[in-house]
Amino acid sequence: MKQIRLGFSMRGLGYHNSAWRDPAVPADGPINMNYYADMARTAERGLFDMLFIADHSALPSATIPGVLGRTSHDAGEFEPLTFLGALSVLTTHIGMVATASTTFHHPFQLARQFASLDQLSQGRIGWNVVTSSRDEEARNFGSDRIIPRAQRYARARESLEVAFALWNSWDEDAFPRDKQTGVYFDPAKMHPVDHSGECFRVRGVLTVPRSKQGRPVIVQAGASDDGIDFAASVADVVYSVQTNVTDAKSFYQRVKSAVASHGRDPDHLKIMPGLLPIIGSSRAEAEDRLARMREELDPLIGLYNIAPYFGDLSSHDLDGPVPELRTDRPVISRGQLTLKLARDNGWSIRQLFQSTAIGNGHHVVAGTPSDIVDVMTAWFEGGAADGFNILPAKSPQSLRMFVDQVVPELQRRALYRTAYEASTLRGNLGLPLPA
Amino acid sequence: MKQIRLGFSMRGLGYHNSAWRDPAVPADGPINMNYYADMARTAERGLFDMLFIADHSALPSATIPGVLGRTSHDAGEFEPLTFLGALSVLTTHIGMVATASTTFHHPFQLARQFASLDQLSQGRIGWNVVTSSRDEEARNFGSDRIIPRAQRYARARESLEVAFALWNSWDEDAFPRDKQTGVYFDPAKMHPVDHSGECFRVRGVLTVPRSKQGRPVIVQAGASDDGIDFAASVADVVYSVQTNVTDAKSFYQRVKSAVASHGRDPDHLKIMPGLLPIIGSSRAEAEDRLARMREELDPLIGLYNIAPYFGDLSSHDLDGPVPELRTDRPVISRGQLTLKLARDNGWSIRQLFQSTAIGNGHHVVAGTPSDIVDVMTAWFEGGAADGFNILPAKSPQSLRMFVDQVVPELQRRALYRTAYEASTLRGNLGLPLPA
Repeated sequence: MKQIRLGFSMRGLGYHNSAWRDPAVPADGPINMNYYADMARTAERGLFDMLFIADHSALPSATIPGVLGRTSHDAGEFEPLTFLGALSVLTTHIGMVATASTTFHHPFQLARQFASLDQLSQGRIGWNVVTSSRDEEARNFGSDRIIPRAQRYARARESLEVAFALWNSWDEDAFPRDKQTGVYFDPAKMHPVDHSGECFRVRGVLTVPRSKQGRPVIVQAGASDDGIDFAASVADVVYSVQTNVTDAKSFYQRVKSAVASHGRDPDHLKIMPGLLPIIGSSRAEAEDRLARMREELDPLIGLYNIAPYFGDLSSHDLDGPVPELRTDRPVISRGQLTLKLARDNGWSIRQLFQSTAIGNGHHVVAGTPSDIVDVMTAWFEGGAADGFNILPAKSPQSLRMFVDQVVPELQRRALYRTAYEASTLRGNLGLPLPA
Repeated sequence: MKQIRLGFSMRGLGYHNSAWRDPAVPADGPINMNYYADMARTAERGLFDMLFIADHSALPSATIPGVLGRTSHDAGEFEPLTFLGALSVLTTHIGMVATASTTFHHPFQLARQFASLDQLSQGRIGWNVVTSSRDEEARNFGSDRIIPRAQRYARARESLEVAFALWNSWDEDAFPRDKQTGVYFDPAKMHPVDHSGECFRVRGVLTVPRSKQGRPVIVQAGASDDGIDFAASVADVVYSVQTNVTDAKSFYQRVKSAVASHGRDPDHLKIMPGLLPIIGSSRAEAEDRLARMREELDPLIGLYNIAPYFGDLSSHDLDGPVPELRTDRPVISRGQLTLKLARDNGWSIRQLFQSTAIGNGHHVVAGTPSDIVDVMTAWFEGGAADGFNILPAKSPQSLRMFVDQVVPELQRRALYRTAYEASTLRGNLGLPLPA
């Protein structure tokens, strides 16, 4: 029977932008390996398929006066690939997905580091392939502005093409290490890449053997046309931002059709929208918890959080209507979703950023464990999701509550595994080994 | 009292090029984390300052017909930075030095990944800064040939300048994480880089806080004029290839003078030549062990090993004289040292590559633990070395013998620590915290 896939977003101190100020949240967590190891093990106890590390290559600019330094997001953290090296040897079952941009790094190095992580973890690594969209990141890498989206996606596609070729540059049995004959590796089982494209030229083999799961699992999260087509052609998993089940269904159908049109089995790409659960022993308790979280939000951070889409609204009436999207930069898909959310609900600026600060555009469900499983079931059985990327509001406690209360309910309804089926991420996700 | 510093070369299965065929050597070691963790812990038992990971970004070309696949070097291994992420959490005291080239990677990413490792290890990381000299590496990164040495060093210098500025972009106390006031980090203690040079433009701060040891320890190993001047200006440690104590002394004096001429305290750069010990319970046993190691060498690998300096000598009489250095590529310092070694000893081609295969130009000492300590003492007290980078011939057994037999003798003579003095690599090396 088909079962729900689960991942969770582990980066930082929780999806709530002021989570770090909660007395129960360890504020030095983003630079404390014990904090992360403990959370990863909690997720393993909950039999999660994977954990996910978001990333940007720059501190965000202070787009709102006085906001700089008031959030724990994107500052004072480990770098994802070195971090997953450490986490690989502190966990045994869970898959680990790191975000890495193709906009600034060379695919040989990316392919090599991900292949190495896939060896360190014995086949449990995924790569969330992103293109960088922030000018702050461009400034750390030599230019004033980020390159246009079409160019970024062209570079991403070619990076993946190179990475796939490099991950295929050694057969599974290429290293006999035969002490008698003196054959450490067999040159006949080596397939040097000879790539010459618009962005890159690469001729050689990887210095890392083929991994147990063939190659890292590819994750994609862009919801633009470019993003969907890219995902349909190469991704194993799609993360998405869905505010309601209707939109989620239409996105699901659109992506699955695109996968089929690329000649792939639609079941070989798993769609996992984000879901932010607020768990209570009663519905009232959960709703009260959500309301308190909204009040805890620093308004500066609320404004800052929506500034990428709306610009600096600090001089606006916070209880007045939400204006149009800013026009001084290209519209991105997340901005359109945020505006739609505000309009559909008739929210003020304050209501928008209070809501945004909790789920950041993702679907928020406040209720009992049974309520939350009801929603997950409706999405899963209704053709809106193959699984979910759980967004803990505050870490580590939100994840712990989910594992202790929601996972058993999912298992009771036979919607979720009771033991890991495989030792690799690809195996647990039910994806075939690449040829 | 001044004491000897110790590091060791951990990469692969030993410095002996056919080490992997020894029945006691675990041939899958280069891709087995248990193998490396065990070795690192052995070195911690021996109170080593650090371990060292060599690296190249490509499989070497088969410069000798039939040699491809016959060595474990540079094929089928972990990538160093992800690998040190894992090792950081499996060790507690030892410093860990990774090789990374400035020729292909952007300094923002290098600075970020090393800073992250320095956090993961709580201040135990070093960066062996190299420029890539192999065309095979260039071909993986978009060009046919490696850029000329002067350009490579200019890029290396500028990369370090950027990295230092980024590592200084946060004060030590920049992250109060004060839940009451809502100040996660203090923007006044942030120092954005504004670098604009020949190779790079970088404007921003690192996303990683300042490390416990201020910044990673900088290691340099080039023996050319460019390399020495570069090391004298920025390095904390210099690795060198020395075949005898006389040459080692003159190199030591030259580097220390260069450090002083850069306005630095000469004691703040530690010179650690490579040393390959062959240990026996008697001198005869050690010499017999060395002779057997020479015989164990696959002649194809012997020829391959000296090919970078001499080209393909497989059609030469192996028992005839060693020819001049190849003239079809720029002479590198290691080649000159190798030729000098052959001439000084009057070796045939076979004698050269048999010797080379064991120490690869480094000083080889075969004897009892006491003999080996005698040599170390002579170098250390004679002004030829501040310590040594130990090269195990076969791993892990050569390291184990050193820790069990040579370390106690060093301690008996009060030339070596009996406990770690500090928790950081910089602290153990006796280097001051950077301002």
